Amino acid sequence: MEMGIVVGRVTATRKDDKLVGTKLLITQAIDLDGSPLNSQPIITVDTVGAGVGERVFFVKGSIASRAVSEGSPIDAAIVGIIDSLECDDLKG
Amino acid sequence: MEMGIVVGRVTATRKDDKLVGTKLLITQAIDLDGSPLNSQPIITVDTVGAGVGERVFFVKGSIASRAVSEGSPIDAAIVGIIDSLECDDLKG
Amino acid sequence: MEMGIVVGRVTATRKDDKLVGTKLLITQAIDLDGSPLNSQPIITVDTVGAGVGERVFFVKGSIASRAVSEGSPIDAAIVGIIDSLECDDLKG
Amino acid sequence: MEMGIVVGRVTATRKDDKLVGTKLLITQAIDLDGSPLNSQPIITVDTVGAGVGERVFFVKGSIASRAVSEGSPIDAAIVGIIDSLECDDLKG
Amino acid sequence: MEMGIVVGRVTATRKDDKLVGTKLLITQAIDLDGSPLNSQPIITVDTVGAGVGERVFFVKGSIASRAVSEGSPIDAAIVGIIDSLECDDLKG
Repeated sequence: MEMGIVVGRVTATRKDDKLVGTKLLITQAIDLDGSPLNSQPIITVDTVGAGVGERVFFVKGSIASRAVSEGSPIDAAIVGIIDSLECDDLKG
Repeated sequence: MEMGIVVGRVTATRKDDKLVGTKLLITQAIDLDGSPLNSQPIITVDTVGAGVGERVFFVKGSIASRAVSEGSPIDAAIVGIIDSLECDDLKG
Repeated sequence: MEMGIVVGRVTATRKDDKLVGTKLLITQAIDLDGSPLNSQPIITVDTVGAGVGERVFFVKGSIASRAVSEGSPIDAAIVGIIDSLECDDLKG
Repeated sequence: MEMGIVVGRVTATRKDDKLVGTKLLITQAIDLDGSPLNSQPIITVDTVGAGVGERVFFVKGSIASRAVSEGSPIDAAIVGIIDSLECDDLKG
Repeated sequence: MEMGIVVGRVTATRKDDKLVGTKLLITQAIDLDGSPLNSQPIITVDTVGAGVGERVFFVKGSIASRAVSEGSPIDAAIVGIIDSLECDDLKG
């Protein structure tokens, strides 16, 4: 899973039926210090009640679909909210 | 999911049987401002009636197949049309 | 899916049983103009009768297996031959 | 699979139900010499009793879920602890 | 699939039960000329009796698991040994 911060929300009226009712959040990947990486933000489906500004972790790929509902066309889902990280940054 | 803009269409007479009848659109990934990224456009299958010039979001990987028909050899599908984005761009 | 051009063929006597009888083609990803990208060519399984020099599109990931035979260990398959592209290149 | 070193741990109270009871470790990819790569550390689920400082290998993608429990929304799992590597580094 | 050369072997006593008995080989991706790419070697499971120094091709992602045994937590497997390549290198 990757660490990220929720930075926004997407509104989409026309979408796949299985996406109706999902909360589509824009998530930016972050490093261990919480700083945004130089990668592109992605659209994730929230499954844990995350809100803008919260530090989360998300899964990518077909398994993200399982966090929402079997077979829904989703390739990224927020599956947890980070309370704290305890770590050594080896890259110093 | 990634954000993109539809930039064109592919015509292919010889293709996998399960692709017959699908609409193959060329989609360029975009950033939060709608500007095209420096990545290569990909071929996506449309599932929501998207047209050239529309801002969409698409799934990648095996789950894209589920948006079209189970088992079809598709690794990218447009699953929604973006009405609006509400967000903070942390990279400033 | 990605666009590519078939550039060669692989001969392999010792291979997974499920690959016996498959045609293994070397495919180079190309851009909208048909120019080869600066990425590494990959080995794809042909499912549409493609030949060297033809412009094709291919799927990557586990779904490629479904284009050939369920459960075969294949992560890239050619699923169509491009007749024509009709598009705007936003990167100008 | 990729080689990595465990560098920390994540605490998350609010998370997907299927993640309850899993040990979430932060893992940094390493090269053949054990030096950390210049890639972003990821969150992996431990399945072999790994601890901080240990050299491990991990799987990525939907199959990681199978190392933990079918259908759990996990895209990276530690599946082994490296005793030793015996190899030639071709890049010299 | 990608082309690679086997450069070593991993010994791991503590590992997922489904990996017991598998041969874990370190594989370096190579280009069409057989030269090692500037990418990180990965750990692959051998399914065709490959040895150090042999030129092989391997699958990545969840489908690699199918080359070994259904559901085993494996994301890269060697599925063939390259006899010969017949190709044009478009990048000249």
